[in-house]
Amino acid sequence: MKTLEVLFTPADFAALKNRNLSQTLCVAFDVFRATSTMVTALANGAEAIIPVAEIPEALAIKRARPEVLLAGERDGLRIQGALSGGVEFDFGNSPREFTRERVAGKTIVMTTTNGTRALRACAQADAVFIGSFLNLQATAEAVRESAPENLLLVCSGTGEQTALEDALGAGALCDLLWNYMEAGAISDSARMARELYRAAKDNVSAAAAGSKNGHRLNGLSDLRDDVAFCLRRDVFDFAADLDPAGHIKRLAP
Amino acid sequence: MKTLEVLFTPADFAALKNRNLSQTLCVAFDVFRATSTMVTALANGAEAIIPVAEIPEALAIKRARPEVLLAGERDGLRIQGALSGGVEFDFGNSPREFTRERVAGKTIVMTTTNGTRALRACAQADAVFIGSFLNLQATAEAVRESAPENLLLVCSGTGEQTALEDALGAGALCDLLWNYMEAGAISDSARMARELYRAAKDNVSAAAAGSKNGHRLNGLSDLRDDVAFCLRRDVFDFAADLDPAGHIKRLAP
Repeated sequence: MKTLEVLFTPADFAALKNRNLSQTLCVAFDVFRATSTMVTALANGAEAIIPVAEIPEALAIKRARPEVLLAGERDGLRIQGALSGGVEFDFGNSPREFTRERVAGKTIVMTTTNGTRALRACAQADAVFIGSFLNLQATAEAVRESAPENLLLVCSGTGEQTALEDALGAGALCDLLWNYMEAGAISDSARMARELYRAAKDNVSAAAAGSKNGHRLNGLSDLRDDVAFCLRRDVFDFAADLDPAGHIKRLAP
Repeated sequence: MKTLEVLFTPADFAALKNRNLSQTLCVAFDVFRATSTMVTALANGAEAIIPVAEIPEALAIKRARPEVLLAGERDGLRIQGALSGGVEFDFGNSPREFTRERVAGKTIVMTTTNGTRALRACAQADAVFIGSFLNLQATAEAVRESAPENLLLVCSGTGEQTALEDALGAGALCDLLWNYMEAGAISDSARMARELYRAAKDNVSAAAAGSKNGHRLNGLSDLRDDVAFCLRRDVFDFAADLDPAGHIKRLAP
């Protein structure tokens, strides 16, 4: 790999549009919770996830393909009929909702805010992987196998701000790949992310729980358990990617 | 203070233009080397620094006010006549050039790239301080005295990328102010910068020397000593600010 870089903040998304991303593999992280939820749904047998930014986009797909399930939150809660013209969403954005019973064999249209923005910002890349702690080792192996010229780790953040848990996820992936990188390839941002992860390594849960999102989730009784759920390491053994048609699937082996 | 936030990357500058910065104090860091050089020049008796982005702007001020001195680099070297219509610049961007003999009582027009971009991005803020390790404690005290509603630490970066040494400087300032902040005021970015600084605390020089800029300067025999020079802590006892007329001066006590 010739370059390894981490983008910490949503402000970087705008700059990405003017950047040549050919020969670049992006890995997008939205640890709390979009990317963690996506890989959980795939682990439980979902056929594909279609990420969209806005509720009307999700509804349009549902009209065309009534068999899809709808997932999404606003302000942490499952989208209610009042926001979606009376259509009830099947899921919120808690990964614990996406059980095998409910998702096996299904295609799920998921509307998130920052997670989707991050994925769309990567649209011109050669390939886009879905990053999470839940499948980090498998993602690292898939990155190594695809041996991209440039590796760009994209933190989704929250609103317009940097989110610590995404930086920790990106840093953990940097750490797994570190020995495969030439020193000259490593940008300062990757050095920072890895250093942050290593400083928190013995207690990533405490570090991530100290984040703004960690605090927010911990304050909501229904969602508190999502924090520990999303920070489990390597419970799934597959990488996931966003294909050119906009579907997130298990990476073909 | 109601908010403490760190911007790591030049991509954030564009977003700053659309942001309300009233009731905000910005501190800009360009550790290697613009902000370190600015405070060194002021410490050695310079009257003011006028930061400008482009060589023609510097030359226009020189024509109007022939007594000013010109400072600036391109690619690490003092601007040569070939780039400036035959006008020789008095200084490059090495803080060690700005000795008392050469700068006392003078106004210096300084053309830098990222440092100036960062300062201009802060133009709508209530106040802008010049951050460096060289006057960090004094800067922290000035921040506390000015007691802003919002404190925004702006890392200049290099080109379009995050620069580790700026994040370390911002993190060191966060660390000095930490006990004066309410937990709810602290953004994840500030938490990250402080954590990075604390992980590197016992050997900031080694950490910063591992940055891209540290490597570059260490590879240039004339500039190698700038690295250690800029990383000295609290050798100057004043804060500096950018006034509304665009002059950087010692902060009036």
